[in-house]
Amino acid sequence: MAVKLLPPTPEQLRPVPGLELGVAMAGVRKPGRKDLLLMRLAEGGTVAGVFTQNRFCAAPVLLARRHLDSGAAPRALVINTGNANAGTGEDGLRRAQTVCAAVAAQLGCAVEQVLPFSTGVIMEPLPADRIVAGLPAAAADLRADNWSDAAQAIMTTDTIPKAASRSLKLGSRTLTITGIAKGAGMIKPNMATMLGFVATDAAVPAGLLHSLLREAADASFNSITVDGDTSTNDSFMLIATGASGVKIASADSPEYAALRDAVMAVSIELAQAIVRDGEGATKFITVTVQGGRDREECRRIGYAIAHSPLVKTAFFASDPNLGRILAAIGYAGVTDLDTSKVDLYLDQVLVARQGGRNPEYREEDGNAVMKQPEITVRVDLHRGPAEATLWTCDFSFDYVKINAEYRT
Amino acid sequence: MAVKLLPPTPEQLRPVPGLELGVAMAGVRKPGRKDLLLMRLAEGGTVAGVFTQNRFCAAPVLLARRHLDSGAAPRALVINTGNANAGTGEDGLRRAQTVCAAVAAQLGCAVEQVLPFSTGVIMEPLPADRIVAGLPAAAADLRADNWSDAAQAIMTTDTIPKAASRSLKLGSRTLTITGIAKGAGMIKPNMATMLGFVATDAAVPAGLLHSLLREAADASFNSITVDGDTSTNDSFMLIATGASGVKIASADSPEYAALRDAVMAVSIELAQAIVRDGEGATKFITVTVQGGRDREECRRIGYAIAHSPLVKTAFFASDPNLGRILAAIGYAGVTDLDTSKVDLYLDQVLVARQGGRNPEYREEDGNAVMKQPEITVRVDLHRGPAEATLWTCDFSFDYVKINAEYRT
Repeated sequence: MAVKLLPPTPEQLRPVPGLELGVAMAGVRKPGRKDLLLMRLAEGGTVAGVFTQNRFCAAPVLLARRHLDSGAAPRALVINTGNANAGTGEDGLRRAQTVCAAVAAQLGCAVEQVLPFSTGVIMEPLPADRIVAGLPAAAADLRADNWSDAAQAIMTTDTIPKAASRSLKLGSRTLTITGIAKGAGMIKPNMATMLGFVATDAAVPAGLLHSLLREAADASFNSITVDGDTSTNDSFMLIATGASGVKIASADSPEYAALRDAVMAVSIELAQAIVRDGEGATKFITVTVQGGRDREECRRIGYAIAHSPLVKTAFFASDPNLGRILAAIGYAGVTDLDTSKVDLYLDQVLVARQGGRNPEYREEDGNAVMKQPEITVRVDLHRGPAEATLWTCDFSFDYVKINAEYRT
Repeated sequence: MAVKLLPPTPEQLRPVPGLELGVAMAGVRKPGRKDLLLMRLAEGGTVAGVFTQNRFCAAPVLLARRHLDSGAAPRALVINTGNANAGTGEDGLRRAQTVCAAVAAQLGCAVEQVLPFSTGVIMEPLPADRIVAGLPAAAADLRADNWSDAAQAIMTTDTIPKAASRSLKLGSRTLTITGIAKGAGMIKPNMATMLGFVATDAAVPAGLLHSLLREAADASFNSITVDGDTSTNDSFMLIATGASGVKIASADSPEYAALRDAVMAVSIELAQAIVRDGEGATKFITVTVQGGRDREECRRIGYAIAHSPLVKTAFFASDPNLGRILAAIGYAGVTDLDTSKVDLYLDQVLVARQGGRNPEYREEDGNAVMKQPEITVRVDLHRGPAEATLWTCDFSFDYVKINAEYRT
């Protein structure tokens, strides 16, 4: 049960000229479901990517990074669900290479121009033969208005496909920004999440595209958590096809500012969609920590709250057992924190003031907030100008059920 | 349902001469249950304590530390369950002082000679008046052979009281070491856990007692986790009454070595009992990380595994979805880890070799281990001589249930 999240209609998802998408049923893990996505990028486009910092990063992550670093202009992305090809060593790398080579042959480009992505179960051999066999069907399906099917083809435990789209008037021309993402568990991205793809038809030089990607990742996928488990496969890609003819020359231009805002909005909408569809989620929680010395300590305290199983089960139960939030603030590792200055709000309700229970706080006020499907926790440290915002969900019976039964 | 943990019988718990215990029903949170424990220490004893490093440490923790630091010889400990007196600011401190003053009056000692401890709900006012009213009954109950009732009087969500006892022959004399502990959730002690009390009738100078306490805490309560939430009230106390007449002069003496071994054994048994009775626990998991450069990195990887909700739900399901363990190793923050050297064992089964699935690993072997109530995860990093062992439990429906309904 996702929290206030509707599946996008195909009409909401604007095609991005210069990029085609095709899906197929390759039977990677189970037959009869869309589990293979191919993206073909027209000549002249640019691609930027950020990847998981998990040391056990998956074979496709290694290979995608290597191909991006080779300087070859990317022409295709190939994504499978059902198998993560992580924890698979040298053999996993060979299987990912086999898939890339087959895509290159299918589309007539060099193998270094193909970027591979995988998601699903870890430490099982990738059925590369079944993926290769599915490629002709995916290629035959390539078209620009295929984002809705694409969003479906990358789902694992997601209950709802995740996509977002914006268009942007720049004088007489229109830019489009459309993206898809997947993820519901093993979500505490560190660089990006498994998997996000955002595309625009602006023309953006590689360096500028990369800095935009970093900024968008930081404000979106790098600010969410479901269970604190950083995946082996997190990848977030930003694609600029250039097909609109709008050239973004520098970060100082008004065109860049407009594009930046739209890319940020799409990225944040996708990242929040992952939390709304977090495994077993019944509540969508915004955690804002302000008054910190720097952003890092605000994020540290925010994550301590967002990861605490005790805080998350209290949200599930709609029980304002809010001392658990104070406990999490206290163990977040900000060793010189003066707790006697800390205020805690639940939406507009001042729960704790100067480190202790607010004398005017009434349990029924906390209860009223806790019953809502969307809740904001705000902590004011009163020791500096910095702040940070994270998004997370609650922790329910269904989280345990989903993850206890994931492979069965 | 605790994992292979039986309640101690009163006969198993040897009295420690020089220490008396008395319990009462003070109605701190609910009427009709033992929730107040008083300990009276004979003159001449020594006490050492370690406390939580949570910045939101509770009022009784602040006060116990202050009284210990005052140099006054402790004569009494007073412990209530049902209310943690944490996140309660100056008012909480005053209420803890009221309780200490009443104990001092009851037993005829100075207020600085009383050490207070509380456990229960956070951020609610301590009903000091009810505790004070219960003190005469607790004082009337004081006796040396009362450890079993004492273990019961400090329980919160514990399903089974936790106690351990050893005796030790030193020539013609016998030393006794007996301890109690409580805790089932909000368990990731940092210095000690809420609450452990171990007593011996050896005579140990304060400095030596403190170093023994630190060593015991490190190997026991500081090596367990249930949910990664470090409590506001963790306290671990070591009491030496001296009533046996056996004087431990220095750390080099054979008497110290024997006492040390017994204190370590009692502390580890109590710490493991907390994990066995962890909220909702159905499995007891030992995590050993070896071949590390230093103990710190072994512990970091061990905690990443022990805290991962995905790993813990897989144990609950008896599902050898062991790639999740590799993912946790990868995000533990050991940034220069060479994953191609990492081996992973489940009991004696080699699951992953050199960073990838062991070609000889068969799913049914993993399954057979996962079905047992006690499981050892062993990771070999092959990069140094250090190792560390932690204990944890799985993550079940009942954990969510217990914590969603804690206050109702």
